[in-house]
Amino acid sequence: MARTYQLEQIKQVVDKLDVAKYIEDGFIAYSQGRVVVPPVGEMIFEKPPGDVHIKYGYIKDDDYFAIKIASGFYENYKIDLPTSDGLILLFSQRDGFLASILLDECYLTNVRTAVAGQIVAKFMAPSKIECIGVFGTGVQGRMQVKYLKPVVDCSDIMAWGRSRDSLDTYKRDMEKLGYTIRTTTDAGEVTQKCRLIITATPSQTPLIDAGQIKPGTHITAMGSDTHLKQELDPKILQSADVVVADSIEQCLTRGEISKTLQAGLINKEDLIELGEVIAGHQSGRTSDAQITVADLTGVAVQDIQIAKAVHEALLQSDFADE
Amino acid sequence: MARTYQLEQIKQVVDKLDVAKYIEDGFIAYSQGRVVVPPVGEMIFEKPPGDVHIKYGYIKDDDYFAIKIASGFYENYKIDLPTSDGLILLFSQRDGFLASILLDECYLTNVRTAVAGQIVAKFMAPSKIECIGVFGTGVQGRMQVKYLKPVVDCSDIMAWGRSRDSLDTYKRDMEKLGYTIRTTTDAGEVTQKCRLIITATPSQTPLIDAGQIKPGTHITAMGSDTHLKQELDPKILQSADVVVADSIEQCLTRGEISKTLQAGLINKEDLIELGEVIAGHQSGRTSDAQITVADLTGVAVQDIQIAKAVHEALLQSDFADE
Repeated sequence: MARTYQLEQIKQVVDKLDVAKYIEDGFIAYSQGRVVVPPVGEMIFEKPPGDVHIKYGYIKDDDYFAIKIASGFYENYKIDLPTSDGLILLFSQRDGFLASILLDECYLTNVRTAVAGQIVAKFMAPSKIECIGVFGTGVQGRMQVKYLKPVVDCSDIMAWGRSRDSLDTYKRDMEKLGYTIRTTTDAGEVTQKCRLIITATPSQTPLIDAGQIKPGTHITAMGSDTHLKQELDPKILQSADVVVADSIEQCLTRGEISKTLQAGLINKEDLIELGEVIAGHQSGRTSDAQITVADLTGVAVQDIQIAKAVHEALLQSDFADE
Repeated sequence: MARTYQLEQIKQVVDKLDVAKYIEDGFIAYSQGRVVVPPVGEMIFEKPPGDVHIKYGYIKDDDYFAIKIASGFYENYKIDLPTSDGLILLFSQRDGFLASILLDECYLTNVRTAVAGQIVAKFMAPSKIECIGVFGTGVQGRMQVKYLKPVVDCSDIMAWGRSRDSLDTYKRDMEKLGYTIRTTTDAGEVTQKCRLIITATPSQTPLIDAGQIKPGTHITAMGSDTHLKQELDPKILQSADVVVADSIEQCLTRGEISKTLQAGLINKEDLIELGEVIAGHQSGRTSDAQITVADLTGVAVQDIQIAKAVHEALLQSDFADE
């Protein structure tokens, strides 16, 4: 019988899990064409304004399939509630039966997004990082940094934000976790100091110009996941030595790559897919002097894989308890 | 916080609920164009063969929206499991938060389908029924009969089936519930004796000819819900005085009506929608001599309404327990 797990139970097992291994395997399966992802289901509400998305899919010949539901109701702050709620349902591919209800309140989406950043850094960051640059002071501006720990030996962060208040809060919160935080509202200061840069904002206009990028820099652009959002000057991707997409198909219509393709500054053939890099069929970074960019728009296989990892770990801990 | 309810808890409240009232209101809202139902989500599996459908939607300006997930894995009998699993998730339209997880294992779909038959009989059956005819000995062949009880004063049933074994099992099971059951493999015997007939088979060829239908008969055809299935000779609908569809839009492409439209034997303008009859804007049956047909293909608003009814009842019983 399917079990229901609350956020606190989920957080406990996630912290002990090698999520990256699952997500890496997911990206490889995706790049091999073994992942089935039907079109996203959507409901739009007007009073109050909100939207609901249903994302679902599976890896062929795998044990499970997953259905993720996430809501965003943008006036929830008026009634002291978070904007988003969400859950992931995991079912068996052997019999269609429900296996787990993960009431993760969108937490697993945040983790799988941050883990993708970790994987990218592992394959694409230059060998020596003295300062990590972070654009954005929200959930991903924090989680991306935390999840870099296993692969990047650096706790010096330079955070960029538009608002002094958010930067101060970010600094205070992150210093409690042991990071050394400098803050700035000047993008040039980040590109000057940092050879590993994460962009994690909802910006719709470029935050960084091509002229600001130093040789030997890697940028993981994960804020833009729609056709409207954009964080990088398209010329950055044009001049980069390597441009990696989490999903080439998806990046044709959303994220930084779509903007650069539209501007005619790169070709689809110039793109490398993350799963190909992880599998070793394509190179990520080959020298510390290269400029590299990874564009992460979020792929359903990440949800499938993290749900599977968490389900299996919860099942084991249930058995241990019984 | 969302609560998870198991099948047994759900069954207990359903039996005490006036589900018909909720479903009637749902059909009325549907016919008034107040129901939003996006395209059904689908996943198809090959090894083992199975399919999963995600149906979802909401009544505008209502309290909730619903997402129903149902799987069918057709080789589950080999591993001693039911073919289908399913659940309904109910969320608040006020904030997007999950309200209830109803692990109903498709039971609520069976109930809402049977209740639609009850509603149709209430508005369309002739006033005096001496024997109810039932084509099909499966779940709906049983539940349709049980749910007629509040609206049709008759416990004499004539059941039609292809297999003597299934008919014998049906007779034995239903007699335990107090029904008088005659069985037959001759459709003509049913049409001769019964003025209220339910067809609840997965047939792909007509089971009843137009020439067999007596004046004063009502037929509820609920077995056919795809473009392949068909239980009635299209000439029955052509010669009927009233043809009601649960959803005219849906019946254009599936069910008995679609076959009759394709054959050019009726026009879309001849159709009446069930919600219009319930609301009193259109007549169902107006005399005991009429031949009437209702074509039920299953509408998402039925799922929304039964989930809402069950959620509200469960919430009340939870409060009573605390």
